[in-house]
Amino acid sequence: MKKLSTLLICILIEVSLFAQTPHGHSHSYDRVINFPDVPGYQVLKCDFHQHSIFSDGSVWPDIRVQEALKDGLDAISLTEHLEYQPHKDDVPHPDRNRAYELALGYAKNHDLIVVNGSEVTRSMPPGHTNAIFIKDANKLLEDDPIVVFKEAKRQGAFIFWNHPNWSAQAKDGVAKLTDMHRQMIKEGLLNGIEVVNDVTYSDEALQIALDNNLTIMGTSDIHGLIDWQYEVPHGGHRPITLVFARERTEKGIKEGLLEGRTVVWFNNTLIGKNDFLVPLIESSLKVKEASYSNKTSIAQIIIENVSDVEYVLENKSSYTLHGHTDLVTIEPNTTTIVDVKTLDVLDAFELKFKVLNAVNAPKSHPEISLQVNIK
Amino acid sequence: MKKLSTLLICILIEVSLFAQTPHGHSHSYDRVINFPDVPGYQVLKCDFHQHSIFSDGSVWPDIRVQEALKDGLDAISLTEHLEYQPHKDDVPHPDRNRAYELALGYAKNHDLIVVNGSEVTRSMPPGHTNAIFIKDANKLLEDDPIVVFKEAKRQGAFIFWNHPNWSAQAKDGVAKLTDMHRQMIKEGLLNGIEVVNDVTYSDEALQIALDNNLTIMGTSDIHGLIDWQYEVPHGGHRPITLVFARERTEKGIKEGLLEGRTVVWFNNTLIGKNDFLVPLIESSLKVKEASYSNKTSIAQIIIENVSDVEYVLENKSSYTLHGHTDLVTIEPNTTTIVDVKTLDVLDAFELKFKVLNAVNAPKSHPEISLQVNIK
Amino acid sequence: MKKLSTLLICILIEVSLFAQTPHGHSHSYDRVINFPDVPGYQVLKCDFHQHSIFSDGSVWPDIRVQEALKDGLDAISLTEHLEYQPHKDDVPHPDRNRAYELALGYAKNHDLIVVNGSEVTRSMPPGHTNAIFIKDANKLLEDDPIVVFKEAKRQGAFIFWNHPNWSAQAKDGVAKLTDMHRQMIKEGLLNGIEVVNDVTYSDEALQIALDNNLTIMGTSDIHGLIDWQYEVPHGGHRPITLVFARERTEKGIKEGLLEGRTVVWFNNTLIGKNDFLVPLIESSLKVKEASYSNKTSIAQIIIENVSDVEYVLENKSSYTLHGHTDLVTIEPNTTTIVDVKTLDVLDAFELKFKVLNAVNAPKSHPEISLQVNIK
Amino acid sequence: MKKLSTLLICILIEVSLFAQTPHGHSHSYDRVINFPDVPGYQVLKCDFHQHSIFSDGSVWPDIRVQEALKDGLDAISLTEHLEYQPHKDDVPHPDRNRAYELALGYAKNHDLIVVNGSEVTRSMPPGHTNAIFIKDANKLLEDDPIVVFKEAKRQGAFIFWNHPNWSAQAKDGVAKLTDMHRQMIKEGLLNGIEVVNDVTYSDEALQIALDNNLTIMGTSDIHGLIDWQYEVPHGGHRPITLVFARERTEKGIKEGLLEGRTVVWFNNTLIGKNDFLVPLIESSLKVKEASYSNKTSIAQIIIENVSDVEYVLENKSSYTLHGHTDLVTIEPNTTTIVDVKTLDVLDAFELKFKVLNAVNAPKSHPEISLQVNIK
Repeated sequence: MKKLSTLLICILIEVSLFAQTPHGHSHSYDRVINFPDVPGYQVLKCDFHQHSIFSDGSVWPDIRVQEALKDGLDAISLTEHLEYQPHKDDVPHPDRNRAYELALGYAKNHDLIVVNGSEVTRSMPPGHTNAIFIKDANKLLEDDPIVVFKEAKRQGAFIFWNHPNWSAQAKDGVAKLTDMHRQMIKEGLLNGIEVVNDVTYSDEALQIALDNNLTIMGTSDIHGLIDWQYEVPHGGHRPITLVFARERTEKGIKEGLLEGRTVVWFNNTLIGKNDFLVPLIESSLKVKEASYSNKTSIAQIIIENVSDVEYVLENKSSYTLHGHTDLVTIEPNTTTIVDVKTLDVLDAFELKFKVLNAVNAPKSHPEISLQVNIK
Repeated sequence: MKKLSTLLICILIEVSLFAQTPHGHSHSYDRVINFPDVPGYQVLKCDFHQHSIFSDGSVWPDIRVQEALKDGLDAISLTEHLEYQPHKDDVPHPDRNRAYELALGYAKNHDLIVVNGSEVTRSMPPGHTNAIFIKDANKLLEDDPIVVFKEAKRQGAFIFWNHPNWSAQAKDGVAKLTDMHRQMIKEGLLNGIEVVNDVTYSDEALQIALDNNLTIMGTSDIHGLIDWQYEVPHGGHRPITLVFARERTEKGIKEGLLEGRTVVWFNNTLIGKNDFLVPLIESSLKVKEASYSNKTSIAQIIIENVSDVEYVLENKSSYTLHGHTDLVTIEPNTTTIVDVKTLDVLDAFELKFKVLNAVNAPKSHPEISLQVNIK
Repeated sequence: MKKLSTLLICILIEVSLFAQTPHGHSHSYDRVINFPDVPGYQVLKCDFHQHSIFSDGSVWPDIRVQEALKDGLDAISLTEHLEYQPHKDDVPHPDRNRAYELALGYAKNHDLIVVNGSEVTRSMPPGHTNAIFIKDANKLLEDDPIVVFKEAKRQGAFIFWNHPNWSAQAKDGVAKLTDMHRQMIKEGLLNGIEVVNDVTYSDEALQIALDNNLTIMGTSDIHGLIDWQYEVPHGGHRPITLVFARERTEKGIKEGLLEGRTVVWFNNTLIGKNDFLVPLIESSLKVKEASYSNKTSIAQIIIENVSDVEYVLENKSSYTLHGHTDLVTIEPNTTTIVDVKTLDVLDAFELKFKVLNAVNAPKSHPEISLQVNIK
Repeated sequence: MKKLSTLLICILIEVSLFAQTPHGHSHSYDRVINFPDVPGYQVLKCDFHQHSIFSDGSVWPDIRVQEALKDGLDAISLTEHLEYQPHKDDVPHPDRNRAYELALGYAKNHDLIVVNGSEVTRSMPPGHTNAIFIKDANKLLEDDPIVVFKEAKRQGAFIFWNHPNWSAQAKDGVAKLTDMHRQMIKEGLLNGIEVVNDVTYSDEALQIALDNNLTIMGTSDIHGLIDWQYEVPHGGHRPITLVFARERTEKGIKEGLLEGRTVVWFNNTLIGKNDFLVPLIESSLKVKEASYSNKTSIAQIIIENVSDVEYVLENKSSYTLHGHTDLVTIEPNTTTIVDVKTLDVLDAFELKFKVLNAVNAPKSHPEISLQVNIK
């Protein structure tokens, strides 16, 4: 199967992750999640809601670290349930920092930031919340959730509401803010909200984030295996939060989260505020070359997509296209050619697109513009 | 690489075509183009603009027949240029019906309809036109194109304008109707227009078709090999015209064309009038199963797509979705699950979508509705 | 990439396992290990050497059960180290049957046999051994290994020597029997030996098995994830022991093991005694059809391979082949055509092959015969 | 499908052949046939038996040139039948050099050598023969084949016997030399013999080549499309003759053929004399790295295969292997690790293999040796 073997060799050429098969053949497929930085910020790939056997997960923390390395993440947190301990007969572990400390050890010789965090696991309100960047999870073992949040804050936590659309706590899947949440927001005890959790997305949670200036979060909330849950071998990916950070450090990520500088990457969809969505998309799409074919006024534009996003675009330029209707798909990590009928031969022009697989609010999509200079 | 993922899924779901390798191993990829019939009509897959060595193509007619069989087409025509004969030093062939007769012979023992046709090859106006369903191409060898069209009509032809957006005849790629075309339309000498030719699409040609009630046509205009030009092994497909016919015969196809009952299938895009687009799409998407998960008002809808189209849908229902933003992709030839937040537990409801990769007019997309009955 | 081609073919021929992606699209690759039964025996797929977090593994037992179900195994055992407990700070677990009991629970509603077992973990001699089919692992916590083996036997155990080629206990990787092992064999305290452990194979261990009538074993000894260690998405598979059983029960498997009725499946290689290898291979390869093409004495044989093995065969018939040298590859789970030059037109004949990717002793390969009857 | 898209990008990184899809996405798969040169010779990839519409083929010569370029061939010849002209009603073409001249023109701006040749098409004896490197095919239109061969020789031809195993001329598929052939050989009118034609191989033809010192030839004899006949998208390849040439010119190739410096590449099998087989295989397999893992005498050898051959090797060293039986598969265009149990820690040693998918005579396989120097 020359074709297939060729594919694999090629992968070996570029892939950032090598697997050595038991039988000595180098195989691999590129699962590293790929996004460009944007002017002024590094774009860091983070999954801040995960579980190991130290609460109700099915793996030891080393697997979570290996998954993160395979996915090319910048930062993770193992956010074990403080109150829900189904494995406690086998894993009594008095120390609630244990999963964090183990993960920290496994990540030691790798370029992965591990953040201490815990899931405060209550019925509604407030439901489940994650406190990350904490110093000592043991001090969060208190009955009154408000006391817990205040202690977490005292330790410097960033706190976000988990799966507000969770059908176990909202039968209709509709995220609804309660007075308790409003009070927490007012007191600075709630900084973010999951708009994406695992395989679910919530328009209502996004609206709550926008209305209350909460940071837009997306997480895997993984309990089993990332590879199985998101079909990574078939090209699937876990949901992550892209944090726009001034530096690639725990401090830089925390600052980015507290200032709401995030975009969620979920099932080939981007979710965030225009301030971050638009630069991310415009940094993903580079006009590599533009020229008019011989004696025509049809401009051939070669667009390089340096991200994992298969962009689904609606043409909003005044020009019509020679090879597309108003719907243009830009495949990930490769180049796409768009032929534009500019009517006259121009030196430069702008292409405008609405990005249909990105949302800046429920049913609302960002618009981007690509500057084209004819060579 | 959605095209490749599509291929993969096809392989999984419906391997309808096996190839026996020279070395005896059964391999395959499914390249048979797959569309359902619609109420009242058979949906026939046709490519009525192709070339062989009998004008300026690079293959003998048997290859065109084999390509059509591999693609599962219902009907083809080898429309050799009447006036342009670059191979004439080697292939003098006085008889302009020769390519047709040879193709007819190769198709004899197969379920493929071969239609006699010719390309009338003139500068603008009228540019290039195809006359198909003719009886004798030799009688079309006349100087005056109008005389040619009248003779073709006398023979019972369906005549359509080829690539009105061709940059060799329209530097700006913009299709423009001339007085000569208007006259031809008035006299019934022009019945259709290519909105898609090979790798190009024309919004302006679509508008001309709608304004002048011309049949919407899409063809490959293939000169080389279908497999190479449309990257069939990577999941690409040639452009075809889907004809909505009352019977699967030459007569049925001709009637369908003359009555404008067509949809063009081009680069995962459908182009046509709502009267045909909407039933085609609604016949492609079947609600296989719908149920509420335990104690919630979130309905899980299993939608089966029985076509090759990867549908790109915008949710126009009043309900929001539990796993998607307002953009929903329905992969071809497989099932997709859509979770709908109906707020109350309902017995039945309607899902409404705008189909973004289908156009019924420039920048205009059809809307479809799927009836959901909870089991 | 024959492995990948194999995967492709499996997908084509028998997609027996579907995964529902988080986002609702049906994807799959067939990882179910596929072997036919043989006359008189069911061929059961077993992996009797695995670890979970209850000794030095990285997963909770539920993952081991899910891996086994995905691989289509018939039986597994979680053989935790009795003496080696690196997780004991977090998982004190006095009860050494715990991993077994948990796995049993997770397998309850599935068609998977879970066997209680433990790894007796000593320096050489005797090195590491697995005792499976035990009743109470806690009773094996004794200093003297002979006492442990006798107690295991008292409980009805089947005992096998693990990785005798392990470089940590045999610097040269060469398995060597010690007097202690000879004594154990004499006393019936050692029933089998791993000829394959994880990614290693040992010619010397195979010779020891044959010389001492020990059951030939192959196991994964998995600590991490099967998918990663054996590159399952690329078509790799874990090593398993195929047990030839009279019934698909714990009793049937134990009887088969005690009577030495096994073949090891490792990296597209079969290892065992001819009594089991030959029927397994001959049951895998079915002559589906045989005929002479028009007016020739060249017989076209269509061979169906109903196993996962890509057979590498050397032609030992007196006839030469029309499409192959003396090396014939039979791809898994599909059909292969072999054209045989029989010189005369025969009613029936025998094809003889040496199977190069099967061994019945070091450097020794079984020969098979396929009866061909011309239709 | 990130995985797949990644595959494609990677391909774009290394592939020597780019396809621009109609819809602007760069796709490709590497079909370029890949072999290393050997000391003293360039290894040139040649297919000297092909047909176009100028005899009984189904394509214009431009397609043959494009296929050759896609396959990365160094030289081709369109060897039209002189006597068999099924298309003559449509393609009278008096000039029998026409296919050659057209192909020459299409290859003009490419790095492909086109050689003039013709197929002398007779019943047995002598059956079909190709005369290549001729100057004027028209002069070969003579009744007596001996007269034809003498004229071809006068023009400087290399002449080889086509498909001596062809069942239409040898019902039992067995190549048999006739007195006429012996006479031709004696007179220098027969220089080579096809051991491989299309999908067939002949042990008997190989023996004839060896007994009579005829050059070993393999050709596609393509009439339809290479992509379909050899399932190139599935990794198949056409049969070719590798010519060991002192220079990459028509002269160099002709000299190589006349001196019998060839290896045939057919269905992952190499066929030739040891003088050329062994250097080709040893040049394909490079020991990239060799080391002993910590404190063991098990040497890890990383072998890079720089050819398209999936080598099927039998270990003939005195050492046994830690991860394989005596059968070792070396995948094409990638690296494979072989762990060797050298018993003592050595500075250097030799690995010896029999190459099972290469034949130097019927049922006879070359042996190669790889020098290993521990770093």
